[in-house]
Amino acid sequence: MSHQQFSSSILENAVNEFSKLPGIGRKTALRLVLHILKQPVTDAEIFSNSILQLRKEIVYCKVCHNISDSEVCRICANPSRMNEIVCVVENIKDVMSIENTQQYHGLYHVLGGIISPMDGIGPNNLEIESLIKRVQAENIKEVILALSTTMEGDTTNFYIFRKLAPLNIKITTIARGVAIGDELEYADEVTLGRSILNRIDFSNSFK
Amino acid sequence: MSHQQFSSSILENAVNEFSKLPGIGRKTALRLVLHILKQPVTDAEIFSNSILQLRKEIVYCKVCHNISDSEVCRICANPSRMNEIVCVVENIKDVMSIENTQQYHGLYHVLGGIISPMDGIGPNNLEIESLIKRVQAENIKEVILALSTTMEGDTTNFYIFRKLAPLNIKITTIARGVAIGDELEYADEVTLGRSILNRIDFSNSFK
Repeated sequence: MSHQQFSSSILENAVNEFSKLPGIGRKTALRLVLHILKQPVTDAEIFSNSILQLRKEIVYCKVCHNISDSEVCRICANPSRMNEIVCVVENIKDVMSIENTQQYHGLYHVLGGIISPMDGIGPNNLEIESLIKRVQAENIKEVILALSTTMEGDTTNFYIFRKLAPLNIKITTIARGVAIGDELEYADEVTLGRSILNRIDFSNSFK
Repeated sequence: MSHQQFSSSILENAVNEFSKLPGIGRKTALRLVLHILKQPVTDAEIFSNSILQLRKEIVYCKVCHNISDSEVCRICANPSRMNEIVCVVENIKDVMSIENTQQYHGLYHVLGGIISPMDGIGPNNLEIESLIKRVQAENIKEVILALSTTMEGDTTNFYIFRKLAPLNIKITTIARGVAIGDELEYADEVTLGRSILNRIDFSNSFK
């Protein structure tokens, strides 16, 4: 479609803009644009405005660094959440994934990345100092480390662990093991090995 | 993702708006929204504005009824196009498909649909009358019918053919046959039959 001559430069421009989005090719972009053309003007106005608002009005929560509409995010401001537990995650997507499980009712702390010397990301580029200060200042009893099981994730976990260790709080990490619904024979040996080492009492497995 | 609690209502709103687009689910919508969040503000402004402009400023060409930036579209206004040939298509997407081949240098006439009694679409709901008037008023020597090979397409072709027949111009239809690159054994028998009936001189097949 690269040499395609559009009869309208406005259409062409809109197709170009949509194709800049990740995973959206020119054919899909054209389909989306033709769809918008058929919708009422007010719908296009609302859509257009939601994009502008998204980029211009979203801020980061000053407590947990998650995205937010105001200084303190909905989760931090919710009085029914357990404020003695903080779950440390890499990014805002991880917060969404955990929220999605509906199994966690504590607070979060978004690092904004993980320690990765290869990418030039050190502890000072992340919200680690603010985590330590938060644990020191607030009545936090447990910090759950929920980072990726990669070398970078392990490095970050260990760095945070060493910083938090003197503060006399419980430090945990999320369980690793064979995924629910997965057959044993297809699990990789490291995961399977971990799931045997960290086996739990059978009666606890129904909780 | 239906019960997902977003930490920001602005984000939630943008995700909702993107999920209204055809073929875009909530997971994809979230991915697009997080991408926009990472782009510069000006990019979001340009994108947002392209949507607004698309819906508010695009008009239909008064000659061929294709979408256009002005009263007369780029194709109709292009003096290097052959204005004695008009290709009749169902919709603006078909114009783009034909333009994409770079094999056609005449003009178009967009019907805006095809005759479909089942959907309550008759000749008067389409740009057929304007086609007849155009052929009568302008120096058009050939009309190419390029509609779908469905019952509705055939009905529309035949209706237009009867209207144009008295005007003493050449009326053609695009060739139907086995697609280039397709193996004969996988072609359906109607298509294969048609490609034999409408066989062409071998020396012409290199043009």
